[in-house]
Amino acid sequence: MCELLGMSANVPTDICFSFQGLLQRGGGTGPHKDGWGIVFYEGKGIREFRDPDPCVNSEIASLVQRYPIKSCYVISHIRQANVGGICLENTHPFTRELWGQNWTFAHNGQLANSESLILDKDLPIGTTDSERAFCWLLGELRAAFSEPPAPDTLRDFLYPRCEQLREMGVFNCLLSNGHFLLAYCSTKLQWITRRAPFGKAQLMDADVHIDFAGETTPNDVVTVIATEPLTNNELWQEMAPGEMVMFVGGEGY
Amino acid sequence: MCELLGMSANVPTDICFSFQGLLQRGGGTGPHKDGWGIVFYEGKGIREFRDPDPCVNSEIASLVQRYPIKSCYVISHIRQANVGGICLENTHPFTRELWGQNWTFAHNGQLANSESLILDKDLPIGTTDSERAFCWLLGELRAAFSEPPAPDTLRDFLYPRCEQLREMGVFNCLLSNGHFLLAYCSTKLQWITRRAPFGKAQLMDADVHIDFAGETTPNDVVTVIATEPLTNNELWQEMAPGEMVMFVGGEGY
Repeated sequence: MCELLGMSANVPTDICFSFQGLLQRGGGTGPHKDGWGIVFYEGKGIREFRDPDPCVNSEIASLVQRYPIKSCYVISHIRQANVGGICLENTHPFTRELWGQNWTFAHNGQLANSESLILDKDLPIGTTDSERAFCWLLGELRAAFSEPPAPDTLRDFLYPRCEQLREMGVFNCLLSNGHFLLAYCSTKLQWITRRAPFGKAQLMDADVHIDFAGETTPNDVVTVIATEPLTNNELWQEMAPGEMVMFVGGEGY
Repeated sequence: MCELLGMSANVPTDICFSFQGLLQRGGGTGPHKDGWGIVFYEGKGIREFRDPDPCVNSEIASLVQRYPIKSCYVISHIRQANVGGICLENTHPFTRELWGQNWTFAHNGQLANSESLILDKDLPIGTTDSERAFCWLLGELRAAFSEPPAPDTLRDFLYPRCEQLREMGVFNCLLSNGHFLLAYCSTKLQWITRRAPFGKAQLMDADVHIDFAGETTPNDVVTVIATEPLTNNELWQEMAPGEMVMFVGGEGY
């Protein structure tokens, strides 16, 4: 399996603290040693970092961890491979252009018979069931809309399709176009929204803590979504199987 | 204007030496301070690094410079903006999926009236004439072929389209799908093929030299393509306006 990490915020925020926690699970405290990746939105552009090597030893991961890239939307993934070999093209998150926007997708789980998903013009580069599911979702979106619909419409459109994918196996996923972050839970996904009054947080996987009060302003709203809670002194919201939450500017609904 | 850098090799080779030279021109010895980017092919995957900040000061560029990522195909670009603001989505190289392959494009020059290029489903994310030209080329390729044609067919197909773009202004470009690197010269582009017996090279923009004999094996063939020669003790081949060279495994034809 794999672990997912996502962020939605109403002001550009760095994800160094959470990423540092996730990183430990990539070959350190966790078995997810088959690659890692992270995508940061910055305006309409994205910064992408990926490595098929364990992130706990990765020089690029170490740069990302200490380099405070500020973003309102981030998706990250650490991989424990099941379908598809360990190589760069099979490393999440996957990104594609749709309607002149960068779309980003990461998946935790596995899908039986993913070849049955009929694709349009977006084709997988690698051999994972995950990238194929992403390409299928993009094809469905292209067929139904000629320009980006409102987040609510998108959510209603994507929900039954995520349910359909869940029926094929395990399908926890994060999806973003830089204007929203959609989280869909098949088996395991949790989130926390931090807002004023900000407090202290302690990482579960490393002896690292932070006082968010010193890093934020009173109007900041920042949601972090993860497969497993990253901190051990805060209350994370556990999503139910089949639950979808759309996050816009840090607020989930 | 901007500067281009490309590499085609028959064995995975790092581009640290050439990139170090290019880097100096990104706000150091040259005026190309409006961003930089580099794409490395690794199998079917790509590693992408981009920054709208001057590369001479970029922490990410500094990592790339000292991190010997080995690849057979690389495209890099440093930008001095003309069309399109200075931001991440306007930073070359641009990448898109076509036929299940990663395609990468970088452009030096400017095109008048690039809005006249009719696009299909590949749409620009940013506002540069360059990205629009790339999307147009992809649309032309999609319309003509349903799967990747042979390099010769591609070359014959793309040549008149590059000529058409050159008529709109200045169009020096590099294009790759990880199986070839295509260089088209409108005003300025030069290349050098290094093979046994390998010798020493001295960067033009920094007091740095290398002895390739110690870094290579006798069968290696490595071509570097650049807007201006990067070394001052080797003979670079100057391309003529309207000339196109296809490089496969380091060999140009």
